[in-house]
Amino acid sequence: MQSRFITFEGGEGAGKSSNMAFVADWLRARGVEVVCSREPGGTELAEQIRELLLAPAQGEMSDGAELLLIFAARAQHLAEKIQPALAAGSWVLCDRFTDATYAYQGGGRGLSVDKIRRLEQLVQGDLRPDLTLLLDLPVAVGMQRAGKRGDLDRIEQQSLDFFERIRTTYLQRAADAPERIAVVDASCELVAVQQQLQRVLEQRWALWEKEK
Amino acid sequence: MQSRFITFEGGEGAGKSSNMAFVADWLRARGVEVVCSREPGGTELAEQIRELLLAPAQGEMSDGAELLLIFAARAQHLAEKIQPALAAGSWVLCDRFTDATYAYQGGGRGLSVDKIRRLEQLVQGDLRPDLTLLLDLPVAVGMQRAGKRGDLDRIEQQSLDFFERIRTTYLQRAADAPERIAVVDASCELVAVQQQLQRVLEQRWALWEKEK
Repeated sequence: MQSRFITFEGGEGAGKSSNMAFVADWLRARGVEVVCSREPGGTELAEQIRELLLAPAQGEMSDGAELLLIFAARAQHLAEKIQPALAAGSWVLCDRFTDATYAYQGGGRGLSVDKIRRLEQLVQGDLRPDLTLLLDLPVAVGMQRAGKRGDLDRIEQQSLDFFERIRTTYLQRAADAPERIAVVDASCELVAVQQQLQRVLEQRWALWEKEK
Repeated sequence: MQSRFITFEGGEGAGKSSNMAFVADWLRARGVEVVCSREPGGTELAEQIRELLLAPAQGEMSDGAELLLIFAARAQHLAEKIQPALAAGSWVLCDRFTDATYAYQGGGRGLSVDKIRRLEQLVQGDLRPDLTLLLDLPVAVGMQRAGKRGDLDRIEQQSLDFFERIRTTYLQRAADAPERIAVVDASCELVAVQQQLQRVLEQRWALWEKEK
């Protein structure tokens, strides 16, 4: 089967890492070669850029610089890792991608969505994820889960209202592109989340098999 | 008089730093408040990005990432330093700006000039330098001068042919925008370069005085 690009999106504490591992296992059990990555980051240079983005000291970063750094890391990630892996026949799973930029920088910070669109087109051309799994849960639940993992970083220190705008943006994008973005209720127990993921995967797998 | 934004461009060893200091002194003697800066860099975050760009270890940087990092640094530099200084009535002198991106990344590396134009518009809007002083000299002369200053960095290690393309691009841009870009012969002695700069400045100053 042709290789596919699957992204995982959601707010803080949505369980992207463990659910991505579950999807990777599900695919590997079907004989698929899987490469897992994350954004911002995924390559040495992109991880250095990620450090600049997340450092609590960078309070003076302009909105425009933040957006361009995110897309610089993404350009490197695509050129060095994602596109070579897809070209070699591997499936690529990625913890966050451009939907996160629309949600965090667009919805959350109120940056120009038009600028995000222009950068997306400039950096990605026509490349978009084949499937995006949106792990959705109420902000308060997510924050509580995230808080258990240690100190909040710069992004997490923002207000709850900020995270509500992020969730709303994610859900709006899912409503606008239901053929690409599958919403999964991540507020329940992990095993119940994975049952939902499995249903989505089985359905998409059947569709993709017909296309091959 | 209204504040102005003046940039200094040219290849390796063109003497941008010493000639920028000369222009700053010339302006200060006329009662102008002057802020000097450089690209990539000019702010703490932008200097960190500059380090990523110049580190000899970054041989694996994709062309797209390089371009986006340059414009990320520029966005920060504009928001944090250049635009506030201009708004406060200071003149801003800058060692390299977007013409260098056209020359080095566009002419030198062969990156898409269309992408550079789209990023220039996205980051700068309509902001362009009021005057650009292009310090022009033959590549071999510039390399010899630059070589005296210690180890060559990643950019300087590129081939002479690369630098010929940069010079050609700079001169072409000057031919296309003679009202903004003044070409100064930087191959002669410093005192003769400064005489040329002085003539350009006197001429522009007279024009700007009429506009004020």
